[in-house]
Order: sequence, then C-alpha cells, then structure tokens
Amino acid sequence: MFDQKRFLMIPGPTPVPESALLQLAKHPLPHRSPEFSEILMRCTEGLKIVAQTKQADPFIYAASGTGGMEAILANLLSPGDKVLSVVNGVFGKRWADMATLFGADVERITLPMGQAVQEEQVREALAKDSNKEIKLVLLTFSETSTGVVNPVQAVAKLVREHGALLAVDAITGLAAMPLKMDEWGIDALVSGSQKGFMIPPGLAFVWVGPRAWEAHKQASFPRFYWDWTKAKKALDDKTTAFTPNVSLICALDETLRLMNQEGIEKTWKRHEKLKQCTRRSVGAMGLQLLATDTEASAAITSIVAPQGIEIKALRKKLKDDWQIVVADGQAELQGKIFRIGHLGFVCDRDVLTALSALSQVLPELGFPVNEAWHQVYNKTLKEFSK
Amino acid sequence: MFDQKRFLMIPGPTPVPESALLQLAKHPLPHRSPEFSEILMRCTEGLKIVAQTKQADPFIYAASGTGGMEAILANLLSPGDKVLSVVNGVFGKRWADMATLFGADVERITLPMGQAVQEEQVREALAKDSNKEIKLVLLTFSETSTGVVNPVQAVAKLVREHGALLAVDAITGLAAMPLKMDEWGIDALVSGSQKGFMIPPGLAFVWVGPRAWEAHKQASFPRFYWDWTKAKKALDDKTTAFTPNVSLICALDETLRLMNQEGIEKTWKRHEKLKQCTRRSVGAMGLQLLATDTEASAAITSIVAPQGIEIKALRKKLKDDWQIVVADGQAELQGKIFRIGHLGFVCDRDVLTALSALSQVLPELGFPVNEAWHQVYNKTLKEFSK
Repeated sequence: MFDQKRFLMIPGPTPVPESALLQLAKHPLPHRSPEFSEILMRCTEGLKIVAQTKQADPFIYAASGTGGMEAILANLLSPGDKVLSVVNGVFGKRWADMATLFGADVERITLPMGQAVQEEQVREALAKDSNKEIKLVLLTFSETSTGVVNPVQAVAKLVREHGALLAVDAITGLAAMPLKMDEWGIDALVSGSQKGFMIPPGLAFVWVGPRAWEAHKQASFPRFYWDWTKAKKALDDKTTAFTPNVSLICALDETLRLMNQEGIEKTWKRHEKLKQCTRRSVGAMGLQLLATDTEASAAITSIVAPQGIEIKALRKKLKDDWQIVVADGQAELQGKIFRIGHLGFVCDRDVLTALSALSQVLPELGFPVNEAWHQVYNKTLKEFSK
Repeated sequence: MFDQKRFLMIPGPTPVPESALLQLAKHPLPHRSPEFSEILMRCTEGLKIVAQTKQADPFIYAASGTGGMEAILANLLSPGDKVLSVVNGVFGKRWADMATLFGADVERITLPMGQAVQEEQVREALAKDSNKEIKLVLLTFSETSTGVVNPVQAVAKLVREHGALLAVDAITGLAAMPLKMDEWGIDALVSGSQKGFMIPPGLAFVWVGPRAWEAHKQASFPRFYWDWTKAKKALDDKTTAFTPNVSLICALDETLRLMNQEGIEKTWKRHEKLKQCTRRSVGAMGLQLLATDTEASAAITSIVAPQGIEIKALRKKLKDDWQIVVADGQAELQGKIFRIGHLGFVCDRDVLTALSALSQVLPELGFPVNEAWHQVYNKTLKEFSK
C-alpha cells in the first residue's frame, strides 16, 4: 500500500501538482481544434516568461530533453562546423558526443565531474580561435549528473564578443535559478517537462532566438521531425507540425498557470532557499558536498558517500523505510555520491522531510549524525524566507 | 458544460479507457527503478503480440508517429541509398519526402488519394531494378488521410523475392486489421500511441526485425536520439536510452492488458464489424464512400462531401449539436471528404451514435437521408457479430 506514498526527490521526474495530474486524466482534446490551439498558444507565451524572452520562439516537441538537444544541433549546424563544448558531466558529454556524431568538429573544454567551467577557460578557448571558426558554443546550465552550475551569463558575454552562437542546455536548471535569455544573449535554449515545469517526462522545449534563426537558414544538416521552419510555420497557424502530446500540453498549461501565480522571481527565490536549507543541513550533519557553494545548483544537491556507507544501501533504506527516492551518481560518480532533487513542485516541508529521513537512516547505517542540523535548518529557513 | 461530452471519432487521438486515463493521473514513477523496468518489459512483450512478432525488437520513443518514421530511415539508410516509396496520401508522401530530404534516392509510385497501390505496380517497379539497387521499400498500411489500405502482405512477398527491406507505417492500421510482421516478412514497423493503442499521443513504437538489424549495422546515417543500438543496449538493461514518457507507458501497460484480454484476433474482428456497419449504413443513407470495399481501412471511413453540403458546416453541426468530432479531409481532399474514425476503444454503440447524429444533421443541412439505413445497420451488425 505505501508504495503509493512514494516521494521523488530526484532530478526528474519531479513531483507533479494534483491539478496537473488531473489534466492528464482527461480525455485528450483533438489536436486540430480551436480549443487546443488556445491552450498551445497560451503555453507558448508562458514558456517565454519562464525563459525571460520576448524575442525567441518556443517550440514544444513530443520528445525527451535529449531530443531537444538534438533539435538544436540539427537546426544550427552543417557538417564540418566548428563547435566549442563544455564537458563537466554526463549531459555536457552527451551534447558534445552528439555534435561529433553529426559531423561537427568539436573542441571540448573538459573538467572533472563536480567542477564548473571557469570564465577564463572559455575566454582562452575563444581567443585562440582568431579566425572566428567556432560557430556554436554548447553549455550546460545546471549539470544534472553533479548539481554544478556553469556561469552561463559570463560565458554568454564572451560568446557574444566572439561572434559565435550560444546554445544552453537548461533542462534541469530552468525555473530553479535566474536565466534571462534575452538579457544574457542566449541564442538557443532547451528544457524538459519533468523538471522545473512540474509535469511528467515526454515534452522537450526549445527556444530559438533571432541569431539562431539566421544561422538556421544557412545550416545544411538534414532535419524533418526537429525542423524549426516546419515548427514555426505550424505555430503561426496556432498548431504543431506533427501530432503533439495533447495531454502533457494541457498539464503544462496548468503548471504554467501555477508558475505565473507564484511569479518567476519568487520561484527562483524558493529554489535558492530549498538549496541552502539542504546544503547547510547536510553539512551540519557531517556530510560532504560535491559542489562548492558558489558553483552549486538550486535544482539538485550532490552529497559525497559518507565514509563506510554504500550509496546503494542508503538509497534502499530511504526507499524501503521512508518511501523517499533519491538518485545515485552517474558515470564515474556512480556509488560515489547521492543526489537530492529539490526542483519544481517542492516546498519547505518536502526538504525537511527528506533531511529528517536521512538523519534517521545514516546512524542506522553506521554514520552518526550531528543533531545540531535541526538548528542550522531552522536558521537557514528563516534567513532565506525573508 | 457539455464540452465535457466531446466525443472523438477522428483517426487519433482515439477514445481512451478510463482505467488508462487513471494511470496518467498517477504521480510518475522514477524511470530508473525496478518498478518501471517491470512495466517497460511487460509493454515490450505486449507490443510484440500486437505486431505478431517473436523475433523483432520493439522500441518505445517519446515522440509522435512521425518521429518513429524518421527513426526507421535514420537507422536503415546511408546517403544515396535507393528507396522505393508508395505515395497515395499525406503520410505516404511525408515518408517519401523525409527520405528525399535525408539524401536517399527516392523512386515514387504515386497514386491518386483514395486508391490503394496495386501489387502489379510494385512488381513492375521492383522488376525494373535488375541491379537490385533498391535497398528499402516504404509502404503505408492504412493511409490515415484517405482510409485506404495498401496490400502489405502481397507487397512484402514481392519485396522478399527482390531482396530489399520493407518498412511499413502502421501508425493508424495496427490492431485494427490483421498485420503479421514475422509471417508476412516486414522488416521495420512503426505505430503510435494515440491510435489502436487507445492512449493519448506522445509515444512512437518501432519494431526492428532481424534483416533490419543487419542493415542497421551498415547504415551510415548519423543518429543519436533515434539510434537502435542505444535503444537495444538500454532495453537489455531493462531501461530506456533517454528519459521515457513514464506516464504514457504506464497507461500503455493498462491498454495492452485490455487488448490482451480481448485477444488480437477479436480486436481485428471488432474493427471489421465497426467498419462494415459504418460503410454500409452511410451507403444506405445515400452517401458516397471514398475507398472501394476491397481497399477500405477498418480504422477509418472516408465519406465524400454530400452534394451541396460544406464539410466545415457538417463538422460544426456534429460538434455543436452532438459533441461529436469527425475529421475533415487533408491536402487536396480538404473540404472534399469527411472522415469517421472507428479505431481503438470504440464499441457498437459509438458507431450507432455517430451514424444517428449524422442522419439527424444531414437533412437539416439539406441532404435527405434514406431512413432504411437503420435496417442496414442492424443487419450488418448481426452479420459481423457472428
């Protein structure tokens, strides 16, 4: 019975509000109808607000986030194009690998998992490119596999000065932390439904800015399902090029309404509070964090495996005894860290619950917890509730 | 209020059983969990039964059906490969256009919309290819835009003799009419969730047979999101390469259970009955059918616009007065036909309801209906209920 109490504190799928779940339970609307067009256009406007853009076109794909990443490459590149890619985790690596596979000439700035790229590293790489051959820079906002945030705003400035395009994978980070597409000068952006948007997986969102549109016209890579020209033509007719996932889009309409109700700045502030409460409390418990304070994501916190404790056993106990699901590390960090997601439809109580369960489980596995974390939590909550 | 009575008799989305809708309303499972693996593997087995295959691997994509069509091309072709494509409707044309765009050398057998390809036409086209350059034949099973069925079994035999591969778009037709992947010798098959599978749009299914696997190994077209090698490696680990649409897959698990309960042969028989009841009744009303009796799909019936009646007005009246949504024609058939879907979760009562509403609406628009259709319906129902 209590598997129905299962509570996800992973970096996606994130918890879904009941009012969005109930949208999913409705009979699907016909996708070529005025009723659906209205919802689609409202979602399109809502997506602009979340990415803080007035000039980019947001497209909704029936796809996972990886599909959206592929859409950006397919629409911006021609074979042989030079790409600069920041690789400091599983998803940064995925994008660079994908670009390589599609025939781009990919230069990588590779960092150990758990570290953010430094502005200086990007400046150097771009400075070396005196012939301005780099056409596109690929950057992950919040790297899901580590909970590390790359300095998107600073990199955007450098890329702008260089003249290349900047594409940002904000699949996990969007809505959790400030990201201003127009103000910062991001050309193409991708996110996914099962993260800050608070609905189940199945939709990829891609925002296409003016410079990306220009590049798209020249890009010769063949594309059909991902094609922006097809997507734009359809959206101008208030519809989609191919059958949309109507149920998820109706649920998105509801969560965008909720997000609008909260207000994007308050959403960012809430995530900052959840992050600080999580980080300071686990720190007070005696645990070690993977990311530094200045590089840590507000969407997800990675915690180093406590001495003598197997991540597998820790995750199992949290799930069996407390019905809380947290994530293991990925790639070389598997078994080395665990990750607590605090992204999307997450409130103070959820984080307190997860921390409390963690503080119950750790001593039972042989790691004594400093009970002072309760005071630290309380103090942090007050500080960031202001 | 009565927009909540809206009833879709279009070729997708099709009606969804309540028990599947309730699956969608659940909090999403974590996709990397034993619970979800179990559901995924059960769905994989269920998909084999629907396509009547023991040897093909079914993959589930977060995508619309068009994405699945692209997956087949991306995995089977190299630039310059020769493809033979049957084009007798919007979706046949879409596949041929897509293959052309991706750099294949596409030969088309083009027919007027509303006609099926003849075995002889395919025989001739393959016979002309004495150097066996044709690598892949693309064929639509049930062409959604017309309600016409192409002779897949006969074409499969010819393609087998020639040595090319056969890929079939069974997006609309699958589960509505007999299709036997192994017995007929189909190499790659695609379908979508919002059709015979009775759930909302958002999933594409692709089945990969042994010969398709061989060709895949040689095919040089770049692919990432659609890549079968990645999909198979993940499925061997009871998971998916990229974040799956967990909610729709849980709903699929439920509808595959229902399909298994009915039994695929009975599902085919039910659709044949719904088709015959629809066709004979509208014929008796005095309306003209687009497809001939031998070429008509069991998924959808296309009816020629009655003299003096605008399709737009007819559809509007059916929707406004009776909350029934039927489809317009597509491309050059827009405004020339209307299409009644009787695919998926459709029972005798649904077809009777749609026909009754139609027989109410037509006279009001100036087309007198022969009331004898009731007897024809009754007789047909009895004949095909045996």
